[in-house]
Amino acid sequence: MKKIFLFLSLVLFSTLSQAQQVEHFEPSSWWIGMKNPKLQVLVHGVNISDFKPSTSYTGVKITKVNKVENPNYLFLDLEISSTAKPGDVTFIFSDSKGKKITQNLSLNARQQNSANRQGYNASDVIYLITPDRFANGDPTNDGIKNYEDLPNRNEEYGRHGGDIKGISKHLDYIKDMGFTTIWPMPLEENNMPKQSYHGYAITDFYKIDPRFGTNQEYLELAQKANNLNLKLIRDVVLNHCGSEHWWMHDLPSKDWINNEGKFTSTNHARETHQDIHASSFDKEKQVRGWFVPSMPDLNQRNPFMANYIIQNTIWWIEYANLSGLRIDTYPYSEKDFLARWSKALIDEYPNLNMVGEEWSMKPSVVSYWQKGKVNTDGYVSNLPSLMDFPHQKAISDAMNEDDAQWGMGLTKIYQTLTDDFLYAHPYNLVVFLDNHDMSRFFTQIKEDPKLMKMALAYLLTTRGIPQIYYGTEIGMTNPKSDSHGEIRGDFPGGWAGDSVSVFENKNLNDSQKDLLAFTKKLLNWRKNTPTIYNGKMVHFAPEGGIYSFFRFDKNDKYWIVLNKNSKEVTLNLDKYKELVPQNAELFEVLENETFKNSVVVPAKGFRILKVKPSK
Amino acid sequence: MKKIFLFLSLVLFSTLSQAQQVEHFEPSSWWIGMKNPKLQVLVHGVNISDFKPSTSYTGVKITKVNKVENPNYLFLDLEISSTAKPGDVTFIFSDSKGKKITQNLSLNARQQNSANRQGYNASDVIYLITPDRFANGDPTNDGIKNYEDLPNRNEEYGRHGGDIKGISKHLDYIKDMGFTTIWPMPLEENNMPKQSYHGYAITDFYKIDPRFGTNQEYLELAQKANNLNLKLIRDVVLNHCGSEHWWMHDLPSKDWINNEGKFTSTNHARETHQDIHASSFDKEKQVRGWFVPSMPDLNQRNPFMANYIIQNTIWWIEYANLSGLRIDTYPYSEKDFLARWSKALIDEYPNLNMVGEEWSMKPSVVSYWQKGKVNTDGYVSNLPSLMDFPHQKAISDAMNEDDAQWGMGLTKIYQTLTDDFLYAHPYNLVVFLDNHDMSRFFTQIKEDPKLMKMALAYLLTTRGIPQIYYGTEIGMTNPKSDSHGEIRGDFPGGWAGDSVSVFENKNLNDSQKDLLAFTKKLLNWRKNTPTIYNGKMVHFAPEGGIYSFFRFDKNDKYWIVLNKNSKEVTLNLDKYKELVPQNAELFEVLENETFKNSVVVPAKGFRILKVKPSK
Repeated sequence: MKKIFLFLSLVLFSTLSQAQQVEHFEPSSWWIGMKNPKLQVLVHGVNISDFKPSTSYTGVKITKVNKVENPNYLFLDLEISSTAKPGDVTFIFSDSKGKKITQNLSLNARQQNSANRQGYNASDVIYLITPDRFANGDPTNDGIKNYEDLPNRNEEYGRHGGDIKGISKHLDYIKDMGFTTIWPMPLEENNMPKQSYHGYAITDFYKIDPRFGTNQEYLELAQKANNLNLKLIRDVVLNHCGSEHWWMHDLPSKDWINNEGKFTSTNHARETHQDIHASSFDKEKQVRGWFVPSMPDLNQRNPFMANYIIQNTIWWIEYANLSGLRIDTYPYSEKDFLARWSKALIDEYPNLNMVGEEWSMKPSVVSYWQKGKVNTDGYVSNLPSLMDFPHQKAISDAMNEDDAQWGMGLTKIYQTLTDDFLYAHPYNLVVFLDNHDMSRFFTQIKEDPKLMKMALAYLLTTRGIPQIYYGTEIGMTNPKSDSHGEIRGDFPGGWAGDSVSVFENKNLNDSQKDLLAFTKKLLNWRKNTPTIYNGKMVHFAPEGGIYSFFRFDKNDKYWIVLNKNSKEVTLNLDKYKELVPQNAELFEVLENETFKNSVVVPAKGFRILKVKPSK
Repeated sequence: MKKIFLFLSLVLFSTLSQAQQVEHFEPSSWWIGMKNPKLQVLVHGVNISDFKPSTSYTGVKITKVNKVENPNYLFLDLEISSTAKPGDVTFIFSDSKGKKITQNLSLNARQQNSANRQGYNASDVIYLITPDRFANGDPTNDGIKNYEDLPNRNEEYGRHGGDIKGISKHLDYIKDMGFTTIWPMPLEENNMPKQSYHGYAITDFYKIDPRFGTNQEYLELAQKANNLNLKLIRDVVLNHCGSEHWWMHDLPSKDWINNEGKFTSTNHARETHQDIHASSFDKEKQVRGWFVPSMPDLNQRNPFMANYIIQNTIWWIEYANLSGLRIDTYPYSEKDFLARWSKALIDEYPNLNMVGEEWSMKPSVVSYWQKGKVNTDGYVSNLPSLMDFPHQKAISDAMNEDDAQWGMGLTKIYQTLTDDFLYAHPYNLVVFLDNHDMSRFFTQIKEDPKLMKMALAYLLTTRGIPQIYYGTEIGMTNPKSDSHGEIRGDFPGGWAGDSVSVFENKNLNDSQKDLLAFTKKLLNWRKNTPTIYNGKMVHFAPEGGIYSFFRFDKNDKYWIVLNKNSKEVTLNLDKYKELVPQNAELFEVLENETFKNSVVVPAKGFRILKVKPSK
């Protein structure tokens, strides 16, 4: 495949060399009135560095023309005045022999209030979708000419045909369920020979993969979601591209890709970012090593690369009016770059939310990256949120382990939360039971429906922003293995002819129906209960297989009790008197049941109780 | 027992009531020229509060006389001028009927440079001793009249007769071995009916237990140690006393002991100190609950109690010229008190070292208590050192677990050290393989002599202040159980008639001899190698069962390599080039072997290499 590409690009370039065209011009559009008036445009074309660019567009200045190792590249530094008018900015590239090439940059007005957009927050519940596996809304785009990885639903790691239209079509379902935010895995072009379905091997950072749809369809999805009051999160990859990215065939410079474009593995020792004893060897291997040979590692120490990535992130936010970001493999990038990237984003959008993936079991490490954390090494991060991986592990262990011994079972959750003092903003962490990279939670807990409900009840009442992986609502599993292909199963009802359909509530079995109804009820209750997502949390150390906590504000108070025992437990209220006034009425919000003086918690069950002072 | 005591004290008090004596006057001696000129003396005697104290001693003023609930107590606030002269300060207590009682406070000059004493530090290796089990230097004090717990070497939890003279007698052995500091478990009176041998149930805070010796013998031990350049650490109990403490029969006030003197258990949820979500219920139960019914929990919110404890700690430092402290069950005390206690100590002795026991596996929690840590809740601790429990667990796991999977085996050590950024002073933590409260390390690693040597080599070259439990040097074990009585076994040679004697190197088996010689060699090498204990540490993430690190300063550089593989490994030096110059000579310090270009590390073995630049 690489050889064919190389051949093709040579052919292309020889043609170009005669036709004198700009092959890549990125970004090809931008906005007026950004806080940062600067823009750096990547220009790629045969011997383009022989040409001198100019423009006469009012309000757009070329402040510097940067040449790099490869004569086929120029990086133009522009300054865009806030008084410039929308329109096509024409650049004329002229060489010494009088040849001229023209290229337009589309300059747009920003949407109203774009800079102050409100990111997702604890009032939201995020629905994580693997677009290839959720719903096939447009079967005509399943296979596309010149895209080698063809559709094959029988192949675990093949493309199954899910797409943007599939998501668009089912936004009503998502909204009715009570989710408020969607996070699809990356949708940019992954023109890779195989395993392209997951989206993380991007071959064009400015283009939606045609098998998912078009940039316009993505925009429409965003608009439709917006109209339904659903927020849209973009999954951002800062660390790597796909090995078939166009620039891999004609790199701007040797240092565009880490290790000069040749594969060398990362050591995954993410702790090197914090480690005061780390060797340079380990530090460099961690950020500069690659994940896999098919994902070249971007060198963000190269300032042109750094600008490219930062602008690309901003471009999609402005283009599709996004509510926030999820950042893939966060600590695999250069930490200075991450500081710069996150600052650029927060400078431009002070209320945006962005959640980074730091897959560590140590809150000490996860908290290092959160905005507001005062780090001893002086590192300033501007990332508002992190994926709460320690918490995920704790919830899973809590459900699976026996509670007889302190430190096991529910204590795992308790002890994870006791580390919240390490975070600058623990209530802004994203909490989850599972995601696209690990066994589905229902499989993790051996398909126990009672534990599943307990875990969901916990997830939707604890501090933080819950994220739920598509299919969790019907208890999707991966019984055979934890291979990614199996975890990311097809959502029933997403394909024409599916005998089972979640969307139509058709042919679901009883336990699926039950879990679906439960999840929907819980989500919709949460959505309308600000005290649950904004209230302060106070918890009680687990004792006898019982863990309980309160969420409260000046208006209301809720008490959540989890019971891991295989027997019903009757709780005496005396222990909780600091939060449950004498003679209070305790109203079970899902069961419409009222308790006084004591509370009965079902075996392997839970209670969500509204605490009402006695009248 | 309690009943007998109650009876005795009633008898005593009726006598007193006629004789009008002061029964307890604590402390009964103090020093001139302390930074804090204040002293608060506890006075106990029948109806002593009916009496008015006075003194005419120059430089000593009674600034306040405090009465409490119980009329049998007075607390005298004194101010001692730095110009006062040493001598007996006579207090006269007079009542309205003209009765007079006299009581002396012995006022002493401080030892030279007392305030600036240098605490133990990373140049030291601490030898932890269970005094009852180390050596019986004075068989005449094994059983003492009125002390119910009689000697019985057949009883695991009985008194075996070890004592202060036993330690004194073998200081030469300790010094020859290469240890520089001794930490005996508490030596104060534990006049408890049973299990009194361990020392943590103190019944008189100012008196050495007569079965261990006398206050004078303790002083002589300290002086002898001092002459041998050995440092002495005191094991301090702030949290509780023994249930047979004299004041338990006549409490100054209901709130002298937590829960009004009645047993209620702690929940051991030490995380409540940091937890931003903790309930008041859990916070209070943690510090105010007791360990066991035989150890009443001292209420440090009572200001007289707080002063009593602080003064008691200072008293022993001055009295025996101590080099430092180890503080038992540190986070079980009130945290405000701990801040006050540690500040009082550091104000008085700025260079003293004190190590707290926070038995947590979380560096985030342990580091919270270290002096210099900037805590988000604003808590200021003045405790210079903590026991590095996370590290202990990591070393044990590292030796026991297979290294094939990342996160297991040696990675445990690596990942623990990567958390050092959490500590204000990681190089001042006390590191150890085991202690008196857990299985002996040789048992933890299933008596593998190679792993034992590797672990000792690691312990004595990693950052921190190593502590070694007596008997480790001959591989003492607890094969039957991990009961405290068995862990704290009798040291061979400490008792007359012992067939095996470590002190005389008599009848040790070959593996004991081998380990003893190895430990001695390693300790003495460390003692004379400042770069190993003061040098900066740089480590390399484990790979293929190999973990290695460097200690270096401007003078020297050492490279320590651990090999967990069951095969010898030859290391290529290229990976380490940032610290091993080309053509360097690598001199094995224990084996007198020199390597160049590559290093051979024996199967389940290690290397300690001095890196010498090529000439």
